[in-house]
Amino acid sequence: MASTAPTAPTRLTIHPDRALPLDPQQREVAREIYAETATLPLICMHGHVEVEAFAQNRPFADPAQLLVVPDHYVTRMIVSQGATPESLGIPRVDGGPVETDSREIFRRFCSSWKLYRGTPSRYWLEHELVNVFGVDVEPGPDTADLVFDQIAARLAAPDFRPRQLLDQFRIELIATTDAATSRLEHHALLAADGLGARVVPTFRPDAVVHLDRPTWRADIAELGAVSGIDTGSYAGYLAALRERRAAFVAAGALASDHGHLSADTTPMDASAAAELYAQALHGEPGSVTAAQVHAFAAHMLFQMAAMACEDGLVMQIHPGVLRDHHDGVFAAHGQDKGFDIPVATEYTRALRPLLQAFGTDPRFRAILFTVDETVYSRELAPLAGAYPSLRLGAPWWFLDSPEGMRRFRETATETAGFYNTSGFVDDTRAYASIPARHDLSRRVDAGFLARLVLEHRLRLDEAIETAVDLAYHLPKLAYARR
Amino acid sequence: MASTAPTAPTRLTIHPDRALPLDPQQREVAREIYAETATLPLICMHGHVEVEAFAQNRPFADPAQLLVVPDHYVTRMIVSQGATPESLGIPRVDGGPVETDSREIFRRFCSSWKLYRGTPSRYWLEHELVNVFGVDVEPGPDTADLVFDQIAARLAAPDFRPRQLLDQFRIELIATTDAATSRLEHHALLAADGLGARVVPTFRPDAVVHLDRPTWRADIAELGAVSGIDTGSYAGYLAALRERRAAFVAAGALASDHGHLSADTTPMDASAAAELYAQALHGEPGSVTAAQVHAFAAHMLFQMAAMACEDGLVMQIHPGVLRDHHDGVFAAHGQDKGFDIPVATEYTRALRPLLQAFGTDPRFRAILFTVDETVYSRELAPLAGAYPSLRLGAPWWFLDSPEGMRRFRETATETAGFYNTSGFVDDTRAYASIPARHDLSRRVDAGFLARLVLEHRLRLDEAIETAVDLAYHLPKLAYARR
Amino acid sequence: MASTAPTAPTRLTIHPDRALPLDPQQREVAREIYAETATLPLICMHGHVEVEAFAQNRPFADPAQLLVVPDHYVTRMIVSQGATPESLGIPRVDGGPVETDSREIFRRFCSSWKLYRGTPSRYWLEHELVNVFGVDVEPGPDTADLVFDQIAARLAAPDFRPRQLLDQFRIELIATTDAATSRLEHHALLAADGLGARVVPTFRPDAVVHLDRPTWRADIAELGAVSGIDTGSYAGYLAALRERRAAFVAAGALASDHGHLSADTTPMDASAAAELYAQALHGEPGSVTAAQVHAFAAHMLFQMAAMACEDGLVMQIHPGVLRDHHDGVFAAHGQDKGFDIPVATEYTRALRPLLQAFGTDPRFRAILFTVDETVYSRELAPLAGAYPSLRLGAPWWFLDSPEGMRRFRETATETAGFYNTSGFVDDTRAYASIPARHDLSRRVDAGFLARLVLEHRLRLDEAIETAVDLAYHLPKLAYARR
Repeated sequence: MASTAPTAPTRLTIHPDRALPLDPQQREVAREIYAETATLPLICMHGHVEVEAFAQNRPFADPAQLLVVPDHYVTRMIVSQGATPESLGIPRVDGGPVETDSREIFRRFCSSWKLYRGTPSRYWLEHELVNVFGVDVEPGPDTADLVFDQIAARLAAPDFRPRQLLDQFRIELIATTDAATSRLEHHALLAADGLGARVVPTFRPDAVVHLDRPTWRADIAELGAVSGIDTGSYAGYLAALRERRAAFVAAGALASDHGHLSADTTPMDASAAAELYAQALHGEPGSVTAAQVHAFAAHMLFQMAAMACEDGLVMQIHPGVLRDHHDGVFAAHGQDKGFDIPVATEYTRALRPLLQAFGTDPRFRAILFTVDETVYSRELAPLAGAYPSLRLGAPWWFLDSPEGMRRFRETATETAGFYNTSGFVDDTRAYASIPARHDLSRRVDAGFLARLVLEHRLRLDEAIETAVDLAYHLPKLAYARR
Repeated sequence: MASTAPTAPTRLTIHPDRALPLDPQQREVAREIYAETATLPLICMHGHVEVEAFAQNRPFADPAQLLVVPDHYVTRMIVSQGATPESLGIPRVDGGPVETDSREIFRRFCSSWKLYRGTPSRYWLEHELVNVFGVDVEPGPDTADLVFDQIAARLAAPDFRPRQLLDQFRIELIATTDAATSRLEHHALLAADGLGARVVPTFRPDAVVHLDRPTWRADIAELGAVSGIDTGSYAGYLAALRERRAAFVAAGALASDHGHLSADTTPMDASAAAELYAQALHGEPGSVTAAQVHAFAAHMLFQMAAMACEDGLVMQIHPGVLRDHHDGVFAAHGQDKGFDIPVATEYTRALRPLLQAFGTDPRFRAILFTVDETVYSRELAPLAGAYPSLRLGAPWWFLDSPEGMRRFRETATETAGFYNTSGFVDDTRAYASIPARHDLSRRVDAGFLARLVLEHRLRLDEAIETAVDLAYHLPKLAYARR
Repeated sequence: MASTAPTAPTRLTIHPDRALPLDPQQREVAREIYAETATLPLICMHGHVEVEAFAQNRPFADPAQLLVVPDHYVTRMIVSQGATPESLGIPRVDGGPVETDSREIFRRFCSSWKLYRGTPSRYWLEHELVNVFGVDVEPGPDTADLVFDQIAARLAAPDFRPRQLLDQFRIELIATTDAATSRLEHHALLAADGLGARVVPTFRPDAVVHLDRPTWRADIAELGAVSGIDTGSYAGYLAALRERRAAFVAAGALASDHGHLSADTTPMDASAAAELYAQALHGEPGSVTAAQVHAFAAHMLFQMAAMACEDGLVMQIHPGVLRDHHDGVFAAHGQDKGFDIPVATEYTRALRPLLQAFGTDPRFRAILFTVDETVYSRELAPLAGAYPSLRLGAPWWFLDSPEGMRRFRETATETAGFYNTSGFVDDTRAYASIPARHDLSRRVDAGFLARLVLEHRLRLDEAIETAVDLAYHLPKLAYARR
C-alpha cells in the first residue's frame, strides 16, 4: 500500500538565484551585477587551511573527517542540542575514546540537518554538497549513507587533491596562517614547486605575545632557535620577531594576523616592557597578572605596527573573542571547539595610540575585523573613513552570513564608503567551503548594490564596477604589501 | 451645510494580512505559512495575569480599569506627553486622590490614540478591540463613550470570565508568576477544579534574593513561615528555598523566573554568603552596600541553577532593566509604572560561572531574555549555539513588536538556528492581549520564513514545519521540566 | 576612429523617486505621502551656518571654498584614501603652505567622486549640484573644470546670497550656533533688518564648561566682560551664564546646545563645584584632572537644565563623540577636520540625576541626540516614551543618512512612538546642503510610513498626517520655548 512505500529522498538542488533579493526587479538587477563577478578569481587572504595540505597534496580522508569533525560551525550546533563532542569523533586531549566510525558520525550529522535551517552553514554545505561533491539528495537520517558514498566517491577521484582544487576553485591567491616560530619549510616546498606566489604564509605571533599561554616559554625558546637570536632578553625577543617577519616577507607573506581579546594598543615604556618580559620568562610561574598579560599584548600590537612600517606587512587585527568559554570542553578537547564567545569590543580609544603613531603613515596598513556589529556605524566606519592607513575587513566569523553581510553594508557604507573596506575576505579551515563563501558574498553585495540602483542612489555601471572591486580588486589592493 | 454635519466615525477593522510582508510574492508565501499556525493552541509560559483572576473567575471591571489603568505600555505613552498618572486613575501609594471616573479616563486614552501609531500597543489594542471586544469604531475623542459602551457590553456577557476566555483564546497552558513566599492556595483551588495542569505557577524568588528590597526582612520571615523552616540562618534560607521550589513543583510549576539588574552569576564563598546574609538580616539597616547587594544576587542566581539541576525547574533569566528610574513616580505610584529603563547588559562573562558549572549538565535548562538587542548576534546566539542547556527566549518587553521580532530572527538565527530558541513566549499582565501577541509573532515569523523560502535558503515544507515548531512545539519543549 | 573620440561626459540627473522604496506598491504609497511634505517650509533648529553669512549677505567664494574645503564629510573621505589635508586647501594652524588653487582642489574632489558611492554625501551633493547649482554633468577628472564653471556661474548670480537663499530654500526658521560669550551683534543686525525671528541664535556654552579647553580661562574672562558680571568666582560664573541666557532669549533664541563626551549629569556639591572652579581659574595650569573636567561638565549639564526651567530654553544634548582623535591632524589643522570618532554612550544612568530633578517638570524640555545607534531601542526610546520633558532628536551626524534614518524609525518608533521625537533636525555648516537633507528625510519617512500602511499597521490618512508632523509641526513644537 502507498502508505508503507518508502518515501523517495528529497532531491538536493541549489537554485541559481539563491541569496539574491526576492523582489523581482531587485533580483533582476542583482542578477546582472552578480553575472559580472560570479566567475572572477578568488583572493583568499585570511585562510586557515593548513599549509601541509598544499605541500603534501594528499587525498582527503572520508566525508566525516573532512566535513564534520574539524568544522566547529558544524559540530557546535549538534552539541548545542545535547550530543557530546565524543559522539562526533572530536578527539580528546587525553586520548580517551571517541567515536571512530565515520559513517556513524556522518549519520549523526545528517540526522541533525534541520538544526542548520537559516544558518550560513546550511547555505555553504548545500553549495559544497552539490557543486563540489556532486551530491543529489538531501542529508537526513535515511540518506546519510548514500550522501556519504557520493562524497567518498568524489574524494577518491585523482583530481580531488588540494593543489588541483586551487584551479577548480579558481583560487588565484591563498594565504595560510603560520606561527611566528614556523620554519616555513612547507612554503619552501611550495616555492620549489612553483606555487610560492600562489600559496603564501601569514605571520601570526599570537603564541609569543600572550604571556598567559601555557606554552609561552617553550614558544619563546623556539622563537630563539628558529631565528638564531637569543630571546632571553626583551631586546633579543624584538630582534627575533623582526627576523621572523623578514623571513616571512622573503617567503612571500603579505600580512600579519593578530587575535587579541581587546583592541588595546597602548604601548608600555620600553624598560617596563623589558622588565615584564623578564619576569614572564624567568620569574615564578603564574606571577604575571591578568592586567600585565593584557598590557603586554597591547604593547606588542603597537610594536607590530611599528615593525609593519619597516617591512610593509599588512596588519590584520581580530579582537573581541573570549576563547574557550567552557573550561571543561577546553580541557577535554582543546581549542576551537565552538565555545569561543564574542564580547563587546571598544576600538575608538583602544586603537588611538596606534593610530596617533602610524595612522597617517603611508607605509602602514591595518585591516580591522570585529564580531561586535555595534561598532560598524559607531567606531569602525568613522575610523576607516578618516585614517588613510585603515581598511575595514569583511564581516568575520559569525557575521560571515547573508544577514551579517547585509547589515555590514547597511551600517558601514554610508560613513566609510565602499573603498575603505577590504572587499571580501574569507576565514575558514574548511577548504571545500571557500567557493561557497565567496559566491555568497558576491550575491549579497549584488543584492545590496541592486537596491542602491533601484533607489536611484547609484547607476548600474557604477554598481557593477563596485561589485567587481569588492570581489576582486579591493582584496588585492588592501593586502598589497606596503 | 455639509461642513457642519458630524463626521461619521472611522470604522475600526483589522486586515487579514496585517503584519505580513508587503511584497506580493512574500505575502503569498507568508500567508501559506501563517495558515498552518494561525489556529494552533497557545502556550503561555511567562504570564503575569494574577492567579486570583482564574481562581475567583469574577467578571472584569470596566473598560478603563481593564485596558488602561493597569497597562504601563498604555499609560506611559500618555504620561510621556504630559498627562499625570493621577489623571489616568493610577493609584497613589499614599491613597491620595486620582481620577475615579472610568469614562473620563477612557476618554483621555481615546484622545491619545494617535500617540500609539507605529507601536505594538496600537497593534495589540486594535486586535483586542475588534476580535475580543467587538468594537467597530476607531477610538478618538468623539468615539470614546461609544467604544466604552461596546466594551462594557462585552464585559457583561456571562462567558466573558477568565476561565471561559482560556477556551475562547485557545490557551492550552498558562503560567502565572508567584512569589517564593506564595502559599499557592489559588493554584490549589484551580487544581481542585481540574485546572491544575492548565494554569501553573512559576517560582519567582526576586523578593527574597535582592537584599535592598525594602520588604526583604519581612519576606524572609514570611519565607520561614510558609516553608516551616527557620530562615534565621543562611543554611535555613537555602533549605526554605528548596522547600518552596519543591512545593511549586508539586503544584505543577515548570519554571522559575529571575529578574536581575545584571546577568552576573559569580558565586560567593559559602561562608561569605552566610555572613552577608546574617548582616542583611540582623545588621544595622542600610549597612549592606550596593556591591554586596549585587554580589548576593549573582550568588543566588548560581544557587538557583544548582537547585534547578536537582528539581528540574527551567530557569528564566530576565536581566538588564533599571527599575523605577524616577524616584518621584515610584514614591507616588509604586513599581511597574512605565519608568523601567533598560541598560547595556553583558552576558558572555556574566554567565560564565553558571555555564562552567551547569552549562553542559543534561539536568539543567536556562532560557535567556534581553532588552539589549546588541547581544543577540554578539553573545546570546553564540552561547545558545554552543551550550546544550541554553535556549534563547523570545524578544522581550519593548522588543515584543513587529520590528523587534524581525530583528531578533535576523540577528540570532544565523548563529543559534531556530532550534536553540524557545519559540514564542508572551509576557504580559494584560490578559486580553494574549491572543494578539501570539498572533503577531506567528505573522512575523511567517514573513521571515517566507523570505528564506523566496531567497532559496529554505524549502516551503521546512518553513512550515519550523513555523509550527516556533509557535507551539518549541515552547513546550523549552519549558518541559527536566 | 570611434575609440579615440572623447567620451561624452555622463549626464548628471536626480531621479524624482530617488531614496523612495524600490517595491512598486510601496513606492506608489510613499510618493503619495511624500507629495504632501515635499514643499513644506524648512525648520532648521540646529544649524551651524555662521551668522555672519546672513548678517553680511556677501556672495559665496568659489566652488572649492564653498563645497569642498570647509565640509569635513567631503574632505575626510579623500584624506582616508591618502590625500593630505594640505592638498585640499585645508588651512594649517601655523599658516604653513596649503593648496590655494581652487580649481586644483576641485579637480581632486571630482577625481574622488567614486569614493562617495553609497554615502549621504553623494546623495546631498547630487541634489545640490543639480537643484541648487544647475550642474548637468557628473563630476570626474574630465569634467572638473566644467562643473567648476557651472557652479561659479551660479555663485555670481545676484540672487545667490545667503538671505536670498532663505526664500529659495523655503527656510521658515533657521538657528545659528553662538558661543555663550557672543555679543550677538550679528543677530542684532538681522533683527534691525526684520530677520530677527527667522534667523535665531542658539546658546552654546561648551567653551566655558569644559575646563580642559586651552582657551577656557580666556573665555571665562570674556564671559565676564560680555555679561558685565565678575566671573572670578563660581557664583559670578553662574550669574554670568544666567545673564547670557537671558540675552539670548531676548535675541530670539529658542534653545541651548551642549556637546559633551559623556551624557553624565551628576551634580556636584555647590561648594565642591565652587572650589573646583576656583582651582581651574586660579590654580596651577594643568592641575585639574581629567576626572574633575568630567565631573564639572556633568555638573554644568545639570545646572543648565536648572536654568532652562527658569528661562524656557530647550536643551539639546549631543554626547558621545571623541573629538580630534588624531593629535597631529588637530595640531596642524585644528578642530572639525573629520577626525571626530564616536564612542559607546550610556544614557539611562547618566541622565538619571537630571531626569530625577527636572524630567517631569512642565517647564523643562530636552532633546537627546546620539551617534551610538545601540541606544535607540535600549535607552532613548524607553526614556522618551516615559518622561514628558524628553524628545528624541533626529539621527545625527554620521546617522543623518538613508539607512541611518530608516534604522532610527525602525528601532525607536515602537517604543517612543512618533510623537516623542523631534521631527527632522538638520545639523550642518554646509548651507547649500540644507534642502537636500530635509528632502531626504521626508523621502525616508515616506518610505517607512508607506510600509506601515501596506502592512496594515497604519491608515494612509494617518501616515500623511504623521509625515507632515515629522517634517514640519514636530520640530516647531519640540523647539517651542517653554
